[in-house]
Amino acid sequence: MRIFEEMESEVRGYVRSFPAIFHVARGSEMFDEHGKRYIDFFAGAGTLNYGHNNPLLTDAMIQYLQEGGIVHGLDKATVAKRAFLTKLRDTILAPRNLQYKVQFTGPTGTNAVETALKLARMIKRRSNIISFTNGYHGLTLGALAVTGNYDYKDESYGSRSNVAFMPYDGYLGEDVNTIDYLRLFLEDGSSGIDLPAAIIVETVQGEGGINVASIEWLKALETLCREFDILLIIDDIQVGNGRTGTFFSFERAGIYPDMVTLSKSIGGGLPMALLLMRPELDQWQPGEHTGTFRGNNLAFIAATQALSYWDNDDLAQAVKYKGDLLRKELERIAAKFPELGASVRGLGMVQGLVLPQTGVAGETSAEAFTRGLVIETAGANDHVLKFLPSLLIEEDLLHEGLEIVEQSLAVLVEKRHKLLTGDSE
Amino acid sequence: MRIFEEMESEVRGYVRSFPAIFHVARGSEMFDEHGKRYIDFFAGAGTLNYGHNNPLLTDAMIQYLQEGGIVHGLDKATVAKRAFLTKLRDTILAPRNLQYKVQFTGPTGTNAVETALKLARMIKRRSNIISFTNGYHGLTLGALAVTGNYDYKDESYGSRSNVAFMPYDGYLGEDVNTIDYLRLFLEDGSSGIDLPAAIIVETVQGEGGINVASIEWLKALETLCREFDILLIIDDIQVGNGRTGTFFSFERAGIYPDMVTLSKSIGGGLPMALLLMRPELDQWQPGEHTGTFRGNNLAFIAATQALSYWDNDDLAQAVKYKGDLLRKELERIAAKFPELGASVRGLGMVQGLVLPQTGVAGETSAEAFTRGLVIETAGANDHVLKFLPSLLIEEDLLHEGLEIVEQSLAVLVEKRHKLLTGDSE
Amino acid sequence: MRIFEEMESEVRGYVRSFPAIFHVARGSEMFDEHGKRYIDFFAGAGTLNYGHNNPLLTDAMIQYLQEGGIVHGLDKATVAKRAFLTKLRDTILAPRNLQYKVQFTGPTGTNAVETALKLARMIKRRSNIISFTNGYHGLTLGALAVTGNYDYKDESYGSRSNVAFMPYDGYLGEDVNTIDYLRLFLEDGSSGIDLPAAIIVETVQGEGGINVASIEWLKALETLCREFDILLIIDDIQVGNGRTGTFFSFERAGIYPDMVTLSKSIGGGLPMALLLMRPELDQWQPGEHTGTFRGNNLAFIAATQALSYWDNDDLAQAVKYKGDLLRKELERIAAKFPELGASVRGLGMVQGLVLPQTGVAGETSAEAFTRGLVIETAGANDHVLKFLPSLLIEEDLLHEGLEIVEQSLAVLVEKRHKLLTGDSE
Amino acid sequence: MRIFEEMESEVRGYVRSFPAIFHVARGSEMFDEHGKRYIDFFAGAGTLNYGHNNPLLTDAMIQYLQEGGIVHGLDKATVAKRAFLTKLRDTILAPRNLQYKVQFTGPTGTNAVETALKLARMIKRRSNIISFTNGYHGLTLGALAVTGNYDYKDESYGSRSNVAFMPYDGYLGEDVNTIDYLRLFLEDGSSGIDLPAAIIVETVQGEGGINVASIEWLKALETLCREFDILLIIDDIQVGNGRTGTFFSFERAGIYPDMVTLSKSIGGGLPMALLLMRPELDQWQPGEHTGTFRGNNLAFIAATQALSYWDNDDLAQAVKYKGDLLRKELERIAAKFPELGASVRGLGMVQGLVLPQTGVAGETSAEAFTRGLVIETAGANDHVLKFLPSLLIEEDLLHEGLEIVEQSLAVLVEKRHKLLTGDSE
Repeated sequence: MRIFEEMESEVRGYVRSFPAIFHVARGSEMFDEHGKRYIDFFAGAGTLNYGHNNPLLTDAMIQYLQEGGIVHGLDKATVAKRAFLTKLRDTILAPRNLQYKVQFTGPTGTNAVETALKLARMIKRRSNIISFTNGYHGLTLGALAVTGNYDYKDESYGSRSNVAFMPYDGYLGEDVNTIDYLRLFLEDGSSGIDLPAAIIVETVQGEGGINVASIEWLKALETLCREFDILLIIDDIQVGNGRTGTFFSFERAGIYPDMVTLSKSIGGGLPMALLLMRPELDQWQPGEHTGTFRGNNLAFIAATQALSYWDNDDLAQAVKYKGDLLRKELERIAAKFPELGASVRGLGMVQGLVLPQTGVAGETSAEAFTRGLVIETAGANDHVLKFLPSLLIEEDLLHEGLEIVEQSLAVLVEKRHKLLTGDSE
Repeated sequence: MRIFEEMESEVRGYVRSFPAIFHVARGSEMFDEHGKRYIDFFAGAGTLNYGHNNPLLTDAMIQYLQEGGIVHGLDKATVAKRAFLTKLRDTILAPRNLQYKVQFTGPTGTNAVETALKLARMIKRRSNIISFTNGYHGLTLGALAVTGNYDYKDESYGSRSNVAFMPYDGYLGEDVNTIDYLRLFLEDGSSGIDLPAAIIVETVQGEGGINVASIEWLKALETLCREFDILLIIDDIQVGNGRTGTFFSFERAGIYPDMVTLSKSIGGGLPMALLLMRPELDQWQPGEHTGTFRGNNLAFIAATQALSYWDNDDLAQAVKYKGDLLRKELERIAAKFPELGASVRGLGMVQGLVLPQTGVAGETSAEAFTRGLVIETAGANDHVLKFLPSLLIEEDLLHEGLEIVEQSLAVLVEKRHKLLTGDSE
Repeated sequence: MRIFEEMESEVRGYVRSFPAIFHVARGSEMFDEHGKRYIDFFAGAGTLNYGHNNPLLTDAMIQYLQEGGIVHGLDKATVAKRAFLTKLRDTILAPRNLQYKVQFTGPTGTNAVETALKLARMIKRRSNIISFTNGYHGLTLGALAVTGNYDYKDESYGSRSNVAFMPYDGYLGEDVNTIDYLRLFLEDGSSGIDLPAAIIVETVQGEGGINVASIEWLKALETLCREFDILLIIDDIQVGNGRTGTFFSFERAGIYPDMVTLSKSIGGGLPMALLLMRPELDQWQPGEHTGTFRGNNLAFIAATQALSYWDNDDLAQAVKYKGDLLRKELERIAAKFPELGASVRGLGMVQGLVLPQTGVAGETSAEAFTRGLVIETAGANDHVLKFLPSLLIEEDLLHEGLEIVEQSLAVLVEKRHKLLTGDSE
Repeated sequence: MRIFEEMESEVRGYVRSFPAIFHVARGSEMFDEHGKRYIDFFAGAGTLNYGHNNPLLTDAMIQYLQEGGIVHGLDKATVAKRAFLTKLRDTILAPRNLQYKVQFTGPTGTNAVETALKLARMIKRRSNIISFTNGYHGLTLGALAVTGNYDYKDESYGSRSNVAFMPYDGYLGEDVNTIDYLRLFLEDGSSGIDLPAAIIVETVQGEGGINVASIEWLKALETLCREFDILLIIDDIQVGNGRTGTFFSFERAGIYPDMVTLSKSIGGGLPMALLLMRPELDQWQPGEHTGTFRGNNLAFIAATQALSYWDNDDLAQAVKYKGDLLRKELERIAAKFPELGASVRGLGMVQGLVLPQTGVAGETSAEAFTRGLVIETAGANDHVLKFLPSLLIEEDLLHEGLEIVEQSLAVLVEKRHKLLTGDSE
């Protein structure tokens, strides 16, 4: 581990939470260099919806490499890219009646977000973008401006651009319809909030603490956007790719966003990012937004395989089944430790165990890691334990991981109890 | 090709200049789906210094995949990452007496640049960054602010941040020392140019038209930075990784930059980007800058192999040899067509054939493509034919490609002549 | 009037609403060049709290000019300035136990606001400023950023800086405590709202439509500012100088702002502006903020006289008396025309007759003008008739003006009735 | 003086350089409260071109006040304003064949500059403004962005907007044509300098150190602006109003700027500011830019009188005569003290004695003040003694003031000599 401390910047993060040197992985299991096994409930922050080293994907990649398939292609046309585009159209877009043009941006989510914001501002000739409390959209300067978390935003970084943050669904309490609130600002020419070019939103906020927007809220948001001629951008980077039970997370609301950003699992674990845009918004000049790794053909190969999981309804059913199972188990666990005041929220296979007491979620994550489970926290104060397993996780591994969480919580409760009663032996 | 027109955004670029559907590639040769062969003088805009599908790299990747090596690791420690860090330290940094900490940023150059700018501004608590005429540093909002080319900068995109553009070496003519000029502004508290946090510069401007900064200029720039307590950031994304004959492009000047950005060829063709920073600048909080694909382990595998080319001096010698050959041939070709007023500039294996007449460079590129050569243009007005072959290109392929250029120019000159003389048959 | 159309920019405004060429004025009466008399319920948008050409002020000015008193003094010390500072301290600040240093900014309100914002940002080293819906703070670029009204904010003007607009008291309805709402954003490190350097607020929004913040709200705002270490700036430019019944409009809430901006009536009708700041905030370097007309000595002469109105309690009593009278009369008038759905709001001698139907307020103003009354509208949609007479207005003139309003409304109602019934004669 | 220290902000400046309490003034003489007389070579930083309390102006103001002329008129039409507009047209604009619409901005120079920048950006839909090294245009946020002096620009103030600073005439030495340089940047689409909406420039930089742009340079600048469709804004706030020998400072170059800002002496010492714009640029909506003190009628009265100085050629002749005299005397004085390395620069009655040794100009100003002369320094390092007397100064007072300067320099040279030789008695 010394080389990391010696050579890698202090900015390194997960290596601190999960201090092992990982070596091989398959599905929902990872192994460190000493062969110690870990169940993965983090799935690369949503990048590994199809599991680690999924053989379907890996075999295709190996074959492609063996055949000398072109790996780096800038944005030139390739056989691999054609296959991906065709698959995306036929398997995902056409069956959902979604008319979208595809832009391959630099292969990171933040790049897709930057691209969406640039396009929206260019088309509408307005500078303001509305984003939401606890939204997370990336850390390059344009994307950072629409990200809520102050930890990422040093004063020195420079302009926040023209961005207004509005309360997400539920932010003002159950009873307050925050779309009404937003409407109030937009209708009032003196509210101080400029008419925005676009509204960017996650339908479920992952980093923000597993906050789920209701169907009504999403529908109302779309209506509002149409009414005020505002572009609606769904950032589906973390909760798209089937995470919530449908390929796009917004399908449940029956809305048709103007733009959609995709990354993380779209490349099956390899760097890749897309911007989908309604055809009439495709007003770019050739080469106006560019980047070196837009043509990561190995990712196209993996991605095309990954999309074949959507050839039929099996995966959606599985997500529903395992999401329900996960939810029920978490509710049971929450109920088991009433002293923690825990609650559960989420959708499909992104679930959060809210542990409101300071430090509990983090300590649980740490304890679980020693017991062979990789699980992260989320939310502004890291008070939510975030369950984000591969969509393909085997049921027994899911149970095994949940058991580790349960044990870890028990240990924690015990420790706290001893601390309080002075019984530290 | 129809699917690209139907599905891919109008922003697509190279697919227009090089209208073929590529399939396989090896070394400096690419083949389209019909088996037509192309020599590659573009090398993925500098991403393929070690050639397409270099077996040394590919074999290691295949083996890694076959062994189930972890592919996506966020910024967790892995065996593959450890190997890369060790190799980077031992093969590149230590022999050059360069003390740097390494930050794995999102795997695109623009992300590395954004990271450098954020860090510089945070450390110095100053907002201004000085960049240079014709500099190209990426297209996300922070990086875009330091990129010169107006084609990428719609008014609507928003804040250019606090950036001042200064004349690059030679911009004001041979006789003017533009560092003196810059000093004038910095010394004068009323010049309007704030004392910058950092100066970001390419030692050879690739996109900007193959402009080479002299050793004296680079030394003077470093001196100026020290004198005014300004951080010096070398953007070595395009011309690092051996392109100019040494691993880092700034080695020839004997300077020690505060930060260095690397991307493109560092991952051997796979998406990867680094920020190197002097240890005392490593003032990040854990997790302050993050990103999903910082742990592209397949890239670490390829990168580690690629760095082994620097175990000895062979590659440096080869670059020198082939760079000289390329240069001489270009000078010969330039001389052969005096009516074009061509000239040659460059360093090592990044060379430009300046074709000042409007459209000539672009038409040559197009003509060459029909004859089986991929070659791009550069510069604000696309008047420079840019020679950026793989460093490992075989000498006969280099000659073959140059011959195509020569033929293409001949055809062009002939056509223009006919046009002028009215002899259009 | 031709010369105005020929020579004055299209930007001219009040000359369109009040198309007369004014000549002389005294107290609350203005006369045009043909001797036609107008009662003034606008008072120079709050600049003429002591009336037009108040003899107490004018005589002092004439005497000063006759004696050769220095008129323009930059920020040099003068006898006139000393007298003003002494008067301000002894008559206004000391009796109210307010410890403030005084900065003479450029003699316009927007300049005082710019100065306050610069100082707040410099002291706190934070860029964000919180302003409120419908706030109006001026139109130079820094002040414009905290002004809500979109009519003043073309996209092209450039950066809105880092400003977040929050709902003013009552903005979300009677039941919603908007300070609780603001607290929610400030407590949440992921809300997207940076911790601000300062909050700037009017205790009664004049331009914004005569919105009165409650005492509880102002107290809670001050508490919030202390809790989060945020500077509280009261913009008292329009409703200070006795307008609400006390010299400072915030006295009723018993709060002690960190900074207070004053302009309009402070100079007795002549251009003058002040920033008051707590002594510990006076962290300027000499000359760091400057301006040519900071030493408008004629204004100091007028201002010193004007402050003598505060030697005793008479004016405060008069404002209370006439404010009550005005309020009651307006309520009577509102009740008289139920078809208009009118309501009344305000404090002291700034009162608004809310006329929610589109155009009614504007038409009433126009009708009233033909009958000899100058009265303006306010609010985002100009739906509030704004009563802002001189504090010294004679009771009979107040009645006469109100009568004109009543007549004008009657005419309007009649007209509308005719339109509806088709009885257009 | 205690009250100033107790009550006035630390930002106060001139009161420190000129520590007296001034009382009365006439022409070029000021008297402190003890009757001590000072000759004024500063003229309110260019506000008192017609002298202190010029009887022509003062008498008109007294009469106006006595007759009850309306003093504060917002932007309503008044008899006084009509008279001013008529006088401006007939005496200034028409004889010079200048077609301009007039906008009365808030009565400070910075407000006029802000207005010009807003209008330019709105019309051209471009954000960039080019300003010049050592330019001074005011301190509100928009104007500050085009001001060069770093002393006024704390990082914390926020956005510098999109502004590029270019070298003023002579900045790169006598031989370098800085317009050629500017052209290079504008012609090059990759220079990093966006095509600007406008270029703002002073024809003689006052605050910046009395730098005089040559006629050729100004002509070339106008040509450049036409060629690139850039608006040319002349900031004539300090050196307009006859200071250089013609009413507008740009007349000598025979150019016709798109906009001109005027303030300082235009109101004869009272706060007033104007923006002149070509008629086709007058694209404001009514009320789009507003402000409380746009209708300072007392200033209109003074201004109208002041303009009568331009009924014939006498003043222009006098400025030429006294400017020459001043210049010659300064050259004589510079030559008299060769150890100071002094030189002279300027135009008409704005002249600078450049005293390159650190502190000399400031000490001379201080010494002169004790001897009864008010004179300021200018330039980034305050190394220029700035001669800015009233245009109407009597010849004997001019000589008397110059004698004081000469004596002060002699004292200084003597002191320095003693210090060096150790002969401190």
